[in-house]
Amino acid sequence: MSNAADDFSLLVGPDVLTRNYAAGAIIFREGERGNEFFVIKRGKVHISTGNRLLETLGENEIFGEMALIDDSPRSATVVADTDVTVAPITEKQYLFLVRHTPYFALKVTRVLAERLRAQDKAT
Amino acid sequence: MSNAADDFSLLVGPDVLTRNYAAGAIIFREGERGNEFFVIKRGKVHISTGNRLLETLGENEIFGEMALIDDSPRSATVVADTDVTVAPITEKQYLFLVRHTPYFALKVTRVLAERLRAQDKAT
Repeated sequence: MSNAADDFSLLVGPDVLTRNYAAGAIIFREGERGNEFFVIKRGKVHISTGNRLLETLGENEIFGEMALIDDSPRSATVVADTDVTVAPITEKQYLFLVRHTPYFALKVTRVLAERLRAQDKAT
Repeated sequence: MSNAADDFSLLVGPDVLTRNYAAGAIIFREGERGNEFFVIKRGKVHISTGNRLLETLGENEIFGEMALIDDSPRSATVVADTDVTVAPITEKQYLFLVRHTPYFALKVTRVLAERLRAQDKAT
């Protein structure tokens, strides 16, 4: 479900605040405003835009990271595939995490770049 | 030449190692390997791919930041417009800078995202 490049498990400790969603719940919708991104602590989600499934993600992967770039609306909808637990990360928390674990910044940047490139190919 | 979002002047101090290029010199070519990005300390450069001019950059702006994502070849060619002084930043130095100035990570990520989106529109 996660490979080394996408594994954020070591970066968000067990004491981070989490939020739970039941299977089928919409975590956020394309077009909504959002100022946080999410690390999946447990379960699976799928990301889609319009009718197109973009990606299925599992534990220790992230989504919503484009909120770090600007305040554009969400570019995709994220739905819980199973019961999920996520850790929401605001920009402020991100800066804190990055100070303590600078490599986190590179990892987030890489995931974001992959997804922007994938969007490009898909359109 | 630079706006607040792109101004890296506060992030790279006066004691950083720099490299000089004469007007007209090629800093790197599209297709070359590279593992560092650059902060412009003095002068102007232009970035092009094939025959297309993508951007002209000046003091305190960055280029080559896609080297942080992966080891893909350079996606564009960068030429000195004037005599320029640049500060090359390796991944290791980037991690050091980010630890001290976490906001640097967000700024680099934002520039990178803008450019990936601009590439998308251009193709």
